[in-house]
Amino acid sequence: MDNPILTRAELEARRGAKWAYFGPDHLPSWVADMDFRAPEAVTEALARLVAESDFGYAIRGGTLLGPALGRAFAARMRDRFGWEVDPARVLACTDLVQGVFDTVQAFSAPGDEVVVQGPTYDPFREGIEDSGRVMVVDHMRYADRGWSVDLDGLRAALRDSPLLLFCHPHNPTGRAFTRDELLAIGEIAIEQDAVIASDEIWADFMLDSAQHIPFASVSPEIAERTVTMYSAGKSFGLAGLRCAVLHFGSAALQERFHATFPPRMLGGANIMGVEATTVAWESGHAWFEQVLDIIRTNRSRMEAFLEQYGDRLDAAYPTSTYLYWVDCGRLGLEEPPAEFFKREGGVVFTPGAEFGAAYAPFVRVNLATSPEIFDQILAQAAKALDNLSAAGPHG
Amino acid sequence: MDNPILTRAELEARRGAKWAYFGPDHLPSWVADMDFRAPEAVTEALARLVAESDFGYAIRGGTLLGPALGRAFAARMRDRFGWEVDPARVLACTDLVQGVFDTVQAFSAPGDEVVVQGPTYDPFREGIEDSGRVMVVDHMRYADRGWSVDLDGLRAALRDSPLLLFCHPHNPTGRAFTRDELLAIGEIAIEQDAVIASDEIWADFMLDSAQHIPFASVSPEIAERTVTMYSAGKSFGLAGLRCAVLHFGSAALQERFHATFPPRMLGGANIMGVEATTVAWESGHAWFEQVLDIIRTNRSRMEAFLEQYGDRLDAAYPTSTYLYWVDCGRLGLEEPPAEFFKREGGVVFTPGAEFGAAYAPFVRVNLATSPEIFDQILAQAAKALDNLSAAGPHG
Repeated sequence: MDNPILTRAELEARRGAKWAYFGPDHLPSWVADMDFRAPEAVTEALARLVAESDFGYAIRGGTLLGPALGRAFAARMRDRFGWEVDPARVLACTDLVQGVFDTVQAFSAPGDEVVVQGPTYDPFREGIEDSGRVMVVDHMRYADRGWSVDLDGLRAALRDSPLLLFCHPHNPTGRAFTRDELLAIGEIAIEQDAVIASDEIWADFMLDSAQHIPFASVSPEIAERTVTMYSAGKSFGLAGLRCAVLHFGSAALQERFHATFPPRMLGGANIMGVEATTVAWESGHAWFEQVLDIIRTNRSRMEAFLEQYGDRLDAAYPTSTYLYWVDCGRLGLEEPPAEFFKREGGVVFTPGAEFGAAYAPFVRVNLATSPEIFDQILAQAAKALDNLSAAGPHG
Repeated sequence: MDNPILTRAELEARRGAKWAYFGPDHLPSWVADMDFRAPEAVTEALARLVAESDFGYAIRGGTLLGPALGRAFAARMRDRFGWEVDPARVLACTDLVQGVFDTVQAFSAPGDEVVVQGPTYDPFREGIEDSGRVMVVDHMRYADRGWSVDLDGLRAALRDSPLLLFCHPHNPTGRAFTRDELLAIGEIAIEQDAVIASDEIWADFMLDSAQHIPFASVSPEIAERTVTMYSAGKSFGLAGLRCAVLHFGSAALQERFHATFPPRMLGGANIMGVEATTVAWESGHAWFEQVLDIIRTNRSRMEAFLEQYGDRLDAAYPTSTYLYWVDCGRLGLEEPPAEFFKREGGVVFTPGAEFGAAYAPFVRVNLATSPEIFDQILAQAAKALDNLSAAGPHG
């Protein structure tokens, strides 16, 4: 049986960004990477490739890697979400960020407005602004410990925009949108004739009884204007292998995309990424259930922590992702709260300002580590908060 | 000590395209992949990554993978070719084909003519035509068993074209161009104000005493209009790991490129590819010298074969690459010679027509296998030729 848990010593020996970047004096709870050992089936498949020394041009199932990945994606969508897709509508790319940049360039023109939700995953902003487009934020509404899309704001924003970049489930709030919400958002996109680019990289992380609903599966009318972006990178901790897919909900959409980007412009799929992705999707189910259980455990501990500090911290209860989006505004800090927790507690959270200036009082907490390490993260954050109380509100 | 040689049984067990695509009844001498075991330092580095299960977002030397690869490329150019480059002028991409597509789109407009050498590496044609540009071929001249660039043809072709896609050393002819030739070609590009995109993926394979001369190293005036494309994919048999670089010879060129393609549009560098590339460049020297010796051995055997069939086959003596570009026109076949050798000899060469219709009578032979297997390839090709003689010229 796979055991995903890695010890702190094993993690500290890693060379990846999450643990190495801030060094051994800090507990990392920032970048959206998990602290788990990959499924054995995945490491065995990669070890076999290394042993074979078989790093040349690859084929799988008689075709190049791109079509092989398309078939694996179609099988995954059918098995996990009951969504039937045509493998021919799938394009391999390296990562969701590339997918965002390319979708922005293919479905908007320089100077166009492109609509996003607020808080906003930072590469969405970069993909829009680095491409000479104008980002328009439809800020989500927060009430009763829950985030929801501002539909009136969305309609107004899409009036002058050809493209909605949507994140579902939503990073950083942990919201997975319901069918009714998706239908309402999709109807606005249809009414305003906008393309929907739906980043569904968090789709596997459904923490309660609700199922993930692919945006493009909601109706044929929505599908035909929706580009879906997906990857095994988040779910199986494989981001560094660079393997992701774009799915076009209609031939017309795919043709529009390829009028801008002939397929090979995006680069070739790599054998390690395709092998790991395919094996993870086929054989990683039991492993992933264990990971979900660990995340649920840490979510409970985070809830208890928030209850303890409920007078000063506020956060929605995430039903998806492994992220907690915490409003620290009532701490009355004169610095970004992530700076405070880093200096005073030795824990690194992602600064809220990365998701937009309006979110400077927030931090994003990463639950994807062992309960033991997560307890330590919370203990160190608590210590910082307790010292702050002792020193007064602006200490 | 590394031993690059793999047995036929080991190769037949591989799942990569070269051996798997045509199955066990055919000896493959087609796609430009080598039949060698990767350097131990490379497989050890990859095996360590797999054992660490460290597949998340990566850093190396304190930076993301792209800049780390840029530094490794600069060190490689200095150490191997005496060429000093600024790592900041380097962009990671997945493969040379992506580099070709992106360079075409960045440095020409739809409808523009783009100039290539003939015979022409097929993805050059695809990068031009799939991007809605027009390919103009400056056919190389063949005389006295040697190929050279038609400079008058090149000047005429570049009169109406903003871009020369150049392959140096040249696939499929095996020509590495001299400093004088590069200078003459560069002067024409300057005179016609054309950008030079120089595919130097074969640069390491210099089979005799001549050194590879990076096109951009010839003069500052040439450098400032030259994009260099390079990778460890060919030299170390790592094409499937998808890791390559573009180097811009001037800040202005880099800015022009990024006006079309913000860096992240091309996709992220993957950890396996960067690790393998970096280690191969740093530690693969002795291994590569062994590989060059094997290629030289096979080149000698090919020469003997050509002497034997000199009345019917003709080819330049390649001073670079591991390719042999053989004119089979005098066989008088009514079918592509690659078809003939495949059916009658059970050996798969790359059809000349892939390099342009004018080259239909040619085949490209791949020398990068063990001398034992290469002897078998030649023996089977000889059998096909001998049977043809017995049956008459159109047998």
